[in-house]
Amino acid sequence: MSNPGKGRVLLAVNAFQPQRWQELIGNERDVTVEREAGVDPSITYAVVWKQKPNLLVGLPNLKVIFSVGAGVDHIMEDATIPTDIPVVRVVAEDLTRHMVEYVVWRVLDHHRQGRQYREQQRLRAWHDIDQRNAGDVSVGIMGFGHLGRAAASALMALGFHINGWSRSAREMDGVNTYAGEEGLTPFLNATDILVVLLPLTKATTGVIDYKLLKELRRRNALGGSVLINAGRGRLQKEADILRALDDGTLKEASLDVFEIEPLPKTSPLWNHPKVFVTPHAAATSDPRHLVPVMLEQMAAYERGEELENLIDREAGY
Amino acid sequence: MSNPGKGRVLLAVNAFQPQRWQELIGNERDVTVEREAGVDPSITYAVVWKQKPNLLVGLPNLKVIFSVGAGVDHIMEDATIPTDIPVVRVVAEDLTRHMVEYVVWRVLDHHRQGRQYREQQRLRAWHDIDQRNAGDVSVGIMGFGHLGRAAASALMALGFHINGWSRSAREMDGVNTYAGEEGLTPFLNATDILVVLLPLTKATTGVIDYKLLKELRRRNALGGSVLINAGRGRLQKEADILRALDDGTLKEASLDVFEIEPLPKTSPLWNHPKVFVTPHAAATSDPRHLVPVMLEQMAAYERGEELENLIDREAGY
Ligand SMILES: NC(=O)c1ccc[n+]([C@@H]2O[C@H](COP(=O)([O-])OP(=O)(O)OC[C@H]3O[C@@H](n4cnc5c(N)ncnc54)[C@H](OP(=O)(O)O)[C@@H]3O)[C@@H](O)[C@H]2O)c1
Ligand SMILES: NC(=O)c1ccc[n+]([C@@H]2O[C@H](COP(=O)([O-])OP(=O)(O)OC[C@H]3O[C@@H](n4cnc5c(N)ncnc54)[C@H](OP(=O)(O)O)[C@@H]3O)[C@@H](O)[C@H]2O)c1
Repeated sequence: MSNPGKGRVLLAVNAFQPQRWQELIGNERDVTVEREAGVDPSITYAVVWKQKPNLLVGLPNLKVIFSVGAGVDHIMEDATIPTDIPVVRVVAEDLTRHMVEYVVWRVLDHHRQGRQYREQQRLRAWHDIDQRNAGDVSVGIMGFGHLGRAAASALMALGFHINGWSRSAREMDGVNTYAGEEGLTPFLNATDILVVLLPLTKATTGVIDYKLLKELRRRNALGGSVLINAGRGRLQKEADILRALDDGTLKEASLDVFEIEPLPKTSPLWNHPKVFVTPHAAATSDPRHLVPVMLEQMAAYERGEELENLIDREAGY
Repeated sequence: MSNPGKGRVLLAVNAFQPQRWQELIGNERDVTVEREAGVDPSITYAVVWKQKPNLLVGLPNLKVIFSVGAGVDHIMEDATIPTDIPVVRVVAEDLTRHMVEYVVWRVLDHHRQGRQYREQQRLRAWHDIDQRNAGDVSVGIMGFGHLGRAAASALMALGFHINGWSRSAREMDGVNTYAGEEGLTPFLNATDILVVLLPLTKATTGVIDYKLLKELRRRNALGGSVLINAGRGRLQKEADILRALDDGTLKEASLDVFEIEPLPKTSPLWNHPKVFVTPHAAATSDPRHLVPVMLEQMAAYERGEELENLIDREAGY
C-alpha cells in the first residue's frame, strides 16, 4: 500500500496505543517508528506526542511537525525541536466532544450540588436543597479557543450565563467576552464557576493563584465560587487552591490536571472533601479519529494548500 | 387589586412555599386558602398540589382545576375530585430546564464513570479509564412527552444516540421512536441507559421490574446497563432493582423517586455502592415562574379560548 511519491512519516507518539497509530498511518504512507541518531533525509513529516529530546535533529527534509492532542507545551519545552519547521496541532471532533462532556458534567455536578447530595445519601438524609436556575449562574471560560467555545455552546444550551476570556478579543453570540490582562479582573468578578481551558505557555504558567481565585464572585446563587481546571496542571498553584478551599474563597474544585502528574500519593488534593480528581482524562482522542484528519492535512499540503491549525511559536500555542 | 369580574381561586398547594403562591395569585385575583366543609358557590378555579380529599366537593361553580407540577397522579388518586371538571397541568420553563439538567447530569456521570473515578480518588489511584464516545451509547427515554423530548434534545446535542418510547407514536428528528406494548421490548433491547420520565398511571405502576431490566442492552460500550428514574417512585419495584444491581443485570442506577417517600432510613438503596439517591429533587418549579403561566391561562379561558395542557382522565395523565 505504501507510495514512494508520498512523504515518509516519523512516528513518535509516547502514549495512546503507538501500534494503532503505526497501523493506521501505515495503510497510506511509509512510517519510521522512532529512529537512530544521525542524519535521515527520508523523512518529510513528524507525528509526535511527548517525544524524547533530539528526536527531530538531523532531518534535513522535515517539512511539517504534527502534534497529536490539543496541547503543544511538550513541543515548546523541547529546545531541540527546529524552530523554523511549521507545527500543526491535530484536533479531532472526538476530543472536542469529550472535553465538552467533561466540562458540562463537572459544571452540572457543582450546579446541582452533587457533593452535598452524595454526603446526604451517606447520612441517609432526605432533604431537598433549594435549586437555583442555570440562568443565575455565570460560567467563566478562561481560554476561549477551540475547546472553550465548544464548551460555551453546550453550557448556553442548558441556560447558563457565559463569560469568555482570551488573549485577543473573540466575539461569540450570547457570551460576554473579555480579552488580555485588562479584561481579566472584570471577567473574574463576573464569574461564579471558572473553567480553565488555557494552553500552558510562559505567559500562563502559574496564573491560577490565590490572588486570581479571590477575584471570583462568591456571593452568588451557588453560595461560593468553583474552579474547574482541564487545561494543564502547571497553570495552577496547588498550595493556593488548597488555601482558597480551606478559607472559603473557593467552594469546590474539579481538577483533571496537576503540577506533577501522576498526582503524588502524598498530595492533600486526593482526599480533600471539596475536590474531585480525575487523572488527566478529560479529553482523549482515538487514533481512528485523528489519523484520517492528519493524513488529509498531509495530502492537502502535497497539493500545495495552506497548512491549518498552525502553532504560533512566539505565543507558544 | 382584586377584581370581582375575575373568577375566585381556591388555593391548596401543600408543598413549595404556600404563602408565595397566595401573594402572587392575590396580586391579580381573589384567593381562598383551603376551606371549610359545605357549599361554596364563589369559587371558579382550584389550584392544587397534594390536596386533601373532599377539598373540591361542594363547589357548584368550579370551572377548572389547575395542577401545579408535572405529575397529576395526586389528582387521579383522589376519588373525591369531580370527574367532569377539566384538569390543566401547569408546566413552566424552569421545571423543564431543571429536569433536563438532572437527566444530562446523571447520564454524563454514568457515561464518564463518575462512580469509578470517585472510588479511584479514594484509593489515590491514577488510572485513566478508557473513554467511549457518546455516539456509541444509546439513551432510551421511557415516557417521551414534554420532559422526555426536552431531555432528548439536550442529550443529542452532546452526541448521544436517543431512543424514545411513548404510548402513541411520536416522531422526533434523529430519534428512534417506539410506541406501546409492542414497541417496548425492541426499545429496551436497543437501550444502554434507561431514563424513566413516565407519569404514574394504572398502566405504568410497577412497570420497572426485573423482567424489564433484563431486556436492556448489557454488552455495550458502557460495560453494563444503567437505570435513571426521575418519573415517579411507584413506577419501579425496588426489590427488583436491587436484585438486578446485585446480579449484574444493572451496572448502576440514579434514583430521584421511590416507592415510599421520604425513602425509609432502612432502605438498602441508601448505602448501595451502585446507587445515587436524590430526594425527589430532579425538577422543582418556582411559583414566580408558574403563577404567571397559570394566570394567563385563566385570563385566556375567560376570553373564551380553549384550555391547554388538559389531562386525559381516561389515560390518567
Ligand atoms: N485535560 C485534557 O485532557 C486536555 C485535552 C485537550 C486539551 N487540553 C488543554 O486545553 C488547552 C486548550 O485547547 P484549545 O484546543 O481550546 O486551544 P486553542 O484553540 O489554542 O485556545 C486557547 C485559548 O487560550 C487563550 N490564551 C492563550 N494564551 C493566553 C494568555 N496568555 N492570556 C489569555 N488567553 C490566552 C487563547 O487566546 P486567543 O483566542 O486570543 O488565541 C485561546 O482563546 C490545550 O492547550 C491543552 O492544554 C487538555
Ligand atoms: N422527579 C421530579 O422532580 C419530577 C418533576 C416533574 C415531573 N416528574 C414526572 O415526569 C412525568 C412526565 O412529565 P411530562 O411533562 O413529560 O409528561 P407528558 O408530557 O404527559 O409525557 C408523558 C409521556 O409518557 C408517555 N406515557 C404515558 N403513559 C404511557 C404508557 N402506559 N405507555 C407508554 N408511554 C406512556 C406519554 O405517551 P404519549 O406521548 O403517547 O402521551 C408521554 O410520552 C410526570 O408525569 C411526573 O411523574 C417528576
